Amino acid sequence: MKKTLPLPKGFSAAGIAAGIKKKKNDMALIVSDVTAVSAAVFTTNQVKAAPVKWDIQVVEHDGARAIVMNSGNANACTGVQGLADAEAMAALAAGRLGVKPLDVFVCSTGTIGKPLPMEKIAGGIKSLFNEASPDGGMDAAEAMMTTDLVSKTVTAEIDFDGKPARITGLAKGSGMIEPNMATMLAFILTDAAIEKHTLQCALRTAADMSFNRITVDGDRSTNDTVICLANGQAGNEVITQNSKHWKLFLQTLEKVLFDLSMMIVKDGEGATRVITVRVSGAASNGEADEAARAVANSMLNKTAWAGTRPNWGRIMDAIGYSYAQVQENKVNIDYDDVPAVRSGVAAGTPEEHLVAAVSKEAFTININLNLGTGKAVVYTCNCTEDYVRINVE
Amino acid sequence: MKKTLPLPKGFSAAGIAAGIKKKKNDMALIVSDVTAVSAAVFTTNQVKAAPVKWDIQVVEHDGARAIVMNSGNANACTGVQGLADAEAMAALAAGRLGVKPLDVFVCSTGTIGKPLPMEKIAGGIKSLFNEASPDGGMDAAEAMMTTDLVSKTVTAEIDFDGKPARITGLAKGSGMIEPNMATMLAFILTDAAIEKHTLQCALRTAADMSFNRITVDGDRSTNDTVICLANGQAGNEVITQNSKHWKLFLQTLEKVLFDLSMMIVKDGEGATRVITVRVSGAASNGEADEAARAVANSMLNKTAWAGTRPNWGRIMDAIGYSYAQVQENKVNIDYDDVPAVRSGVAAGTPEEHLVAAVSKEAFTININLNLGTGKAVVYTCNCTEDYVRINVE
Repeated sequence: MKKTLPLPKGFSAAGIAAGIKKKKNDMALIVSDVTAVSAAVFTTNQVKAAPVKWDIQVVEHDGARAIVMNSGNANACTGVQGLADAEAMAALAAGRLGVKPLDVFVCSTGTIGKPLPMEKIAGGIKSLFNEASPDGGMDAAEAMMTTDLVSKTVTAEIDFDGKPARITGLAKGSGMIEPNMATMLAFILTDAAIEKHTLQCALRTAADMSFNRITVDGDRSTNDTVICLANGQAGNEVITQNSKHWKLFLQTLEKVLFDLSMMIVKDGEGATRVITVRVSGAASNGEADEAARAVANSMLNKTAWAGTRPNWGRIMDAIGYSYAQVQENKVNIDYDDVPAVRSGVAAGTPEEHLVAAVSKEAFTININLNLGTGKAVVYTCNCTEDYVRINVE
Repeated sequence: MKKTLPLPKGFSAAGIAAGIKKKKNDMALIVSDVTAVSAAVFTTNQVKAAPVKWDIQVVEHDGARAIVMNSGNANACTGVQGLADAEAMAALAAGRLGVKPLDVFVCSTGTIGKPLPMEKIAGGIKSLFNEASPDGGMDAAEAMMTTDLVSKTVTAEIDFDGKPARITGLAKGSGMIEPNMATMLAFILTDAAIEKHTLQCALRTAADMSFNRITVDGDRSTNDTVICLANGQAGNEVITQNSKHWKLFLQTLEKVLFDLSMMIVKDGEGATRVITVRVSGAASNGEADEAARAVANSMLNKTAWAGTRPNWGRIMDAIGYSYAQVQENKVNIDYDDVPAVRSGVAAGTPEEHLVAAVSKEAFTININLNLGTGKAVVYTCNCTEDYVRINVE
């Protein structure tokens, strides 16, 4: 029996094949029955795809009704034509809803530099509106997939003093994607009533602790987008940063985003292990982050973790060339709670204990620089020959 | 018949198996008959191996007589014991020459975090001095190899107004190396007479245009070292930065280092193509360098170049997230002289012409940011499944 994805009250969704990709679902739609409060975070890449440029205008605007997305074509590096196509895509969906184009978010992922096939997009939007239903969540999640091996959905329930609400997240992403590059997309839907700036603050905070903490290959796409729609259908008292339910909402949102981001790391192209890199004792939080990312993005570490060798020398090397201050003779490293390095040299733990620690499906590397109070955590995956195969083909 | 490597006048060399690695030559020696002027450049990694710390003292010291190196053990992250072992290694060679330990450079490459096997090192040094001869250059070059598939040597002749001189270079390096990590080592020998600070300036300049322009996997080792010995046996007038032969010497040195560095890129672990990334029109030279390195180190680009797809979208993506300022609609990209991108969008060149351009064994990616006059060049190789296999095993 097919898995179902419970959507929050007042949301419908659909996923269909518009013919942009061969024989695969390639378009998804999410619609709110009423105008929703929206928030979003976007790629920091200076080269931004046309839909990202469009969505920046949508989120600055007051409300939103829908998200329409396609895979197979990123509508990036497509110039003036690309911007016109993104707007047309929004306008086609807006026409069906009787709203303005700026009430509709659009997302694209796939090949860069080719014009969107607008006839197929138009046909797809028509089908999406015919199919959309409160039970269409899984179809939408599956249509978002590109090299993803599994669809990524999370749903969480909240009780606001007797008013039940829900946060549901749909995401895609597993490293960069054939044939040109790709993207992390996440749509977060909730029927909670929340003030717009409060929602933006919550989304930014939750994204910083989740999507911004994971790294598969260190590349940032031109299309990365996280959109949150809150339609207020739960009927709770509108949440602001001073209100009683702010913390509960934020914590639940954080959990939804964190769970989605872990699904992306686990589904990293060719990945077989999830590695948590925790740095403490750095001169600042920023330096801890630099050190953790240097370790997590080092191809030498990522390939070492594909074998079952401790290779702590590659960790010492990576923190040494990071922008973080490092004093070799102060560094301690543990795999989970197994000491590997003490004061910059081998801790003396028998090799087989270290091998056992790094042979687990998931483990944590704890690095203490012993210089200050800065700390950071980054989640990553290992790199196998399959990563290269996927990205070459 | 075995290839021979002509050494400059007054130099001897040897390469032998000391038993540090199984069944492979693992130690090399280079000796000058007389005290040589020395210069060196070292890794910028904050975590420096013990031999690097030792060599920094040697090069600050007045003259030098020898270089002794081992593979199979990096003597890195070995604490106080490691420093004592590096000094002992120098002292053993110095004893044979009747000079001070500070007259001897030592280099190590191989596993991190394990103490040097000093008995084997001592036996090896004894054998090296028994074997050393003016014909031992190739043996030394071969003993330097780790995952290198070919030994890397270059020799060039100079005529200083009837006084013939020679510059000979030996190098190793092909990305980072099993089982822990590795290293770029290069020994540059010349019989030219040159003043010490002039030699240091020449070496730094030449290294900046060669070894510092190549990137295989973006990792910098704890042991990277380039040492130059100039023993003056050619009998030319001592070269200074104001003297007649300065330019000729510098140009020849640059060529030797450039040729060695290209050999390293070609021998990149699992690599099958050499790619030159040239950025112009950046806001500054520094920004051009940042953009070029972002492109050259992107795993998405390196894997794309393993296939035969142009994938210029991945290049746009990489410059977009680099620290260089980029205005998407000003960017032009060419593969050799085939236009791929004009003003940030597809140039309209037929796909098969782009495919032909990136199918060559070596090609240049020309990126013009059209913002200023900054420029930079970086040389790199593609990344195949073999790179991962080598680094996992």
